[in-house]
Amino acid sequence: MSKRYVGVDLGGTNLKLGLVSAEGELLLRHSAATEADRGPDHVLARIADAVRALCDAAPIGLADVSAVGLGAPGPVDWKAGVVVFAPNLSGWRDVPARDRLQKNLDRPVVLENDANAAAYGEFRCGAGRDVRNLVLLTLGTGIGGGIVLDGCLFRGPADMGAELGHMVIRHGGRQCGCGNRGCLEAYASATAVVARARERIESGPGAPGSALAERPDFTCRDVFEASEGGDALAKRIVEETADYLASGITSILHILNPEMVVLTGGMMGAGDEFLNEVRRRVRETAFERASSTCEICWSTLGGDAGILGAALAAEAFDRTGRPA
Amino acid sequence: MSKRYVGVDLGGTNLKLGLVSAEGELLLRHSAATEADRGPDHVLARIADAVRALCDAAPIGLADVSAVGLGAPGPVDWKAGVVVFAPNLSGWRDVPARDRLQKNLDRPVVLENDANAAAYGEFRCGAGRDVRNLVLLTLGTGIGGGIVLDGCLFRGPADMGAELGHMVIRHGGRQCGCGNRGCLEAYASATAVVARARERIESGPGAPGSALAERPDFTCRDVFEASEGGDALAKRIVEETADYLASGITSILHILNPEMVVLTGGMMGAGDEFLNEVRRRVRETAFERASSTCEICWSTLGGDAGILGAALAAEAFDRTGRPA
Repeated sequence: MSKRYVGVDLGGTNLKLGLVSAEGELLLRHSAATEADRGPDHVLARIADAVRALCDAAPIGLADVSAVGLGAPGPVDWKAGVVVFAPNLSGWRDVPARDRLQKNLDRPVVLENDANAAAYGEFRCGAGRDVRNLVLLTLGTGIGGGIVLDGCLFRGPADMGAELGHMVIRHGGRQCGCGNRGCLEAYASATAVVARARERIESGPGAPGSALAERPDFTCRDVFEASEGGDALAKRIVEETADYLASGITSILHILNPEMVVLTGGMMGAGDEFLNEVRRRVRETAFERASSTCEICWSTLGGDAGILGAALAAEAFDRTGRPA
Repeated sequence: MSKRYVGVDLGGTNLKLGLVSAEGELLLRHSAATEADRGPDHVLARIADAVRALCDAAPIGLADVSAVGLGAPGPVDWKAGVVVFAPNLSGWRDVPARDRLQKNLDRPVVLENDANAAAYGEFRCGAGRDVRNLVLLTLGTGIGGGIVLDGCLFRGPADMGAELGHMVIRHGGRQCGCGNRGCLEAYASATAVVARARERIESGPGAPGSALAERPDFTCRDVFEASEGGDALAKRIVEETADYLASGITSILHILNPEMVVLTGGMMGAGDEFLNEVRRRVRETAFERASSTCEICWSTLGGDAGILGAALAAEAFDRTGRPA
């Protein structure tokens, strides 16, 4: 039997866990509520309990787990094993998650940023298994990023690289949650899609006749569905989203020249028409040699990328003694 | 005596050459007109002649030169030793410059993009000699970029990385020479500074009273000088330039998290007030952990960075058998 690893995807609402083989097979899953409002100590104890519950349900004991990988939703100090902060987790600032979990479980723990983990998962056993250089964008409430260069996760010297949601794509533009203006996240996250649609409705043009205008509340998915159903306002918002995203991807191509850009997160529901629109616009705006050598695609691991990537980052550290 | 290398900085107007020690001392210079209008064959022959002329003036022969580094103004296919294209050199498309020069000189030749070479020069013996990760921006007619990650030049898998002038900083914005809109180059190159000032004059606001409005022709340096002299229109253009540049640097910080951003090129004449304005705005817009760990500074090698970097890239290849 190959070695076994546990991957933990720590989200604001749920903990998702998986028992994973060294080859990247997801053997067993488990999930639990994060209960983030009760603070870091409580959440870390819940993670340890959930890892034990996963092992109890599996045909192996915790002692047979070679290492645990934890993907956290915020910047991480890799060397120190500290979550620097996590905007969606109450009270998470400079939390030494790695050592705390290691002590509780008595197993080696590796801490990664969640989007980095997802990028590494796609690289090891997902859309990017045949490439050495990829960039992943998680299009959800916010926009996260992960970068794999020549088979290794790129974190930057202070672990602040790959914050791709906070590239400036429109100088002086929309206010972003980070405090700056014009970030990719302020235009192409699921949250931004809804906000842009709402503003369009409120400002009037195109709104009469839009089904969205009739609704007190709608989601990003609703916007994409209305667009597919022929709603003109929704269609316009979706096209503009593809256009904004293409500007971000063009910048990424001109800086990092990746072989692949993997899109994931809630916006995967947008489907292939949206993806093809993004591809078409990147081909128009990026240098031919950069766009022709880069595939833009949806994640193949979907919601499992974070679990698999965290587990395989732990596997890489267990095997090599170095970060993934 | 340590080994000797020759670095060649191939520009649209002039060839600049230097004899360089393995430690990065510039021992002797030489220059010649490029005569770019006469095409690649002629230019390559002129480069070979200039290398010979440099050695003739030096106390060593060509045979004592361990390797020659050539920095070319355009994307380069490193492995093939080919200049993919060079917008400022007539007829340069897929020119096998490395092999041609190697054959002519009977010395090993290493071909680099000129901004990559300058970045490597600053890393080895300039502003970045104490860091391992830096980004260089050449602010001139266009904007070139070079990236050093963990002590190595980053080129990207298809050698199309570090095209930093073509990051999109303003989606849908100013037309760039590359065909896309909103590139950093279309806002913060010396050419763009002049174009933006001219448009401001022609459109009226702020122009009455500006010394620039009286002149049939002016340069980027003139705009900066007028700004220092208190000209309100020029001052506004310079402030906006700092602001645009800060957006580009913020994106770079959020993607690559470098320890240093080195600015060079014609805009170095803008002086420290401009640099401080750029720094101030980056501190405002970038994540604190990214901006506090990154120094933004002028090049210390100035116009010699390309010569030194090309020579030291040749030195690195000569020493390790691998790209710099």
